[in-house]
Amino acid sequence: MISKVDIEQAHNRIIPFIHHTPVLTCAAIDELVGASVFFKCENFQKVGAFKSRGAMNAALSLSRDQLSKGLATHSSGNHAQALARAAKILGTPAHIVMPRTAPEIKKKGVAGYGATIYECEPTLAARETTLADVVSKTGATEIHPFDNNEVITGQATAAKELFEEVPNLDCILTPVGGGGLLSGTALAAHYFSPSTTVIAGEPSGADDAFRSMQSGKIEASQSKTIADGLLTSLSPRTFAIISQFVKEVKTVTDEEIIAAMRLVWERMKIIVEPSGVVPLAALIKNKNEFSGKRIGIILTGGNVDLEKVGVLFQSV
Amino acid sequence: MISKVDIEQAHNRIIPFIHHTPVLTCAAIDELVGASVFFKCENFQKVGAFKSRGAMNAALSLSRDQLSKGLATHSSGNHAQALARAAKILGTPAHIVMPRTAPEIKKKGVAGYGATIYECEPTLAARETTLADVVSKTGATEIHPFDNNEVITGQATAAKELFEEVPNLDCILTPVGGGGLLSGTALAAHYFSPSTTVIAGEPSGADDAFRSMQSGKIEASQSKTIADGLLTSLSPRTFAIISQFVKEVKTVTDEEIIAAMRLVWERMKIIVEPSGVVPLAALIKNKNEFSGKRIGIILTGGNVDLEKVGVLFQSV
Repeated sequence: MISKVDIEQAHNRIIPFIHHTPVLTCAAIDELVGASVFFKCENFQKVGAFKSRGAMNAALSLSRDQLSKGLATHSSGNHAQALARAAKILGTPAHIVMPRTAPEIKKKGVAGYGATIYECEPTLAARETTLADVVSKTGATEIHPFDNNEVITGQATAAKELFEEVPNLDCILTPVGGGGLLSGTALAAHYFSPSTTVIAGEPSGADDAFRSMQSGKIEASQSKTIADGLLTSLSPRTFAIISQFVKEVKTVTDEEIIAAMRLVWERMKIIVEPSGVVPLAALIKNKNEFSGKRIGIILTGGNVDLEKVGVLFQSV
Repeated sequence: MISKVDIEQAHNRIIPFIHHTPVLTCAAIDELVGASVFFKCENFQKVGAFKSRGAMNAALSLSRDQLSKGLATHSSGNHAQALARAAKILGTPAHIVMPRTAPEIKKKGVAGYGATIYECEPTLAARETTLADVVSKTGATEIHPFDNNEVITGQATAAKELFEEVPNLDCILTPVGGGGLLSGTALAAHYFSPSTTVIAGEPSGADDAFRSMQSGKIEASQSKTIADGLLTSLSPRTFAIISQFVKEVKTVTDEEIIAAMRLVWERMKIIVEPSGVVPLAALIKNKNEFSGKRIGIILTGGNVDLEKVGVLFQSV
C-alpha cells in the first residue's frame, strides 16, 4: 500500500523537474453548473500532461544500475513522451514501443527527446511482444503507464498540490482510463483531504471502469470514444485502490465530451484534450447533484491534433 | 495629451471590473527565439480581449446624465462585446451596429449582454450612417473602438500591469489595427518604463500603419488578412501618438501568423486569436534582432471561430 510519506517523498523528488501547475476558475462555468469549480491545469504540465509526474517519479526511484540500462514502455500517448523526457533529463536511453498507426506528431514528440522508437502492429499483443523483446535485448526497465506504484505515487502529487492550494473541496473529479491518475488522486484525498469525495468521469464508449465498479471485477474495455487517452482497462493494482477509495464512476457520451471541450476552449481560452474534459462533462451532466459544492477537477492534458479539431467541433 | 495620472486613474477606475491577467512564459518559445519573452495574457481578459479595459474606462468616464442615455458603437468584433458588457454592468442600454455578415457567434455574444443590435450592410458608410441614426434617436454616447482618449487610456493599463510585474523589459510588442492598444502601450511605456522600446506587429495584408510610418501620413488599409481584428486604419489621434512614441512597425504574412498561432496553441496550450499572435510572428521573423533581450508581448485576445480553425491549421 502506497503511504502518505511515499507521496510526500515523490513530490519532493519530482518538484525540480515538473511545473507546479496553476489552478484556474471560470465564472461562466461556475454559473452554468451552480457550483465552485477549481481546475488543476495539468494541460500546462511538462509534455502537456500529468504523465510527467508519474514517469519522472518512477525514473527517479530506480537504482543507479537500473537507470543506467535505460527505460522502456509501450505507449502511443502522453506517457511515451513523459518517459522519453525523464530519460533525457537523467541521461539514460529511452526505448518506446509505438503502434505504427500512432500519429506522426506523437512520434515526433518522442523522437524529439532522443528516444528510440520501435514500431509494431497496432495490437496489444504486438506491443507487449515487442516490448518484451526490447527489454530482454537492452536490459532496460519497463515503466508501465499505470500498473506501477511509483507512477501512481507520482500522479498523486497533482491532487496533493490542488488540496494544498484549495482547501475544503467537497469532491475531486478525474478521468479514468487505466486508473493511474484516479488511484493516485484517491490516495492523495485519503491522506491529505479525507473529507473530499473522489469521483471519476469515463467515456460511455469505454466504460469498463464503470462496469468494473458494478460487477466487482475488472471488465474489458470496448474502446470506442474520441477520448483516446482513456481506452485502457484497469489493472488489478489500480482496481484495488479505486474499489476502496473512489465513490463512483460517471459516464458521458462523446457528444457531451466535445461540448465540454468547446466550453473550456471558448470560455477559459485554454486547450484541453478530449480525455481531459471528461470529468467536466460528467459534472455538467449531473449538475444538480453537485449544486453549491466546491469541486476540484484535474484537467489532465492538452495534446490535441489541431488539424482535426475543426471537424470535431463541427460534429456536434 | 493623455497624462501619467490619467492612466493611473483609469486603472483604479476599471480594476473592479476587469481581470488582472497573468503573465506567462514558455521555455520552448524562449529557446526558439533566443530571448526571454513575457506574454501578457489578455486572451484571459473579460470578453476574451483587452477591449474590456478601454470600453469600461470610457463608460466609467461619462457623466451620470450621459451614461443614463446609453452607449453606442459600430463594431463586428471584440469592442462590441466589451461595450455591451460595460453597459450591462453599469445598468444602461447598449446600441451596437453590426454588419449583417458578422458571425452569428459574435452577435450572440453581444446579445447575451442584453445589447440591442442594429444590422446594416457590411460597408463603413452603412455602419456610420446607421450609428449616426441610432445616436440621434436614442441620445446614446458613441464610444469609438480606438479614436477616443478614454479608450486609449484604458488600453494602456494592460502594458502598465506588465511593466509592474516584469521590470526592465528591453521592448514591448503589440499588434496594430486602429492603433488604440498600440497608442496606449506606447504612452504606458513612456510614463512607466521609459527605457522600453515599443514595436508593433502588423499583417502585411493590412500594412497601413507600416506605410503610414514610412510616408508620415495616414494611409488607407487594403484589409486582406486572417487577422480580422487588425483591418482598420489609424486615426489622426492614434497616428500622432504612434509617430511620436513607437519605434517601428514590422509586418508578417498570414502564413507567419498561422505558424505563430500554432506554436502558442501547441506549446503554451492557450487559445489566442490570429490578431493576437502577430507580434510573436514578427519576433520570430526578426529573432536575430531581439537575441538575448527581455521582451513583453501583449496577447490581445482569444476569440476564435473553433469550427474554422482546423482548416486554418491545414492551410500551412
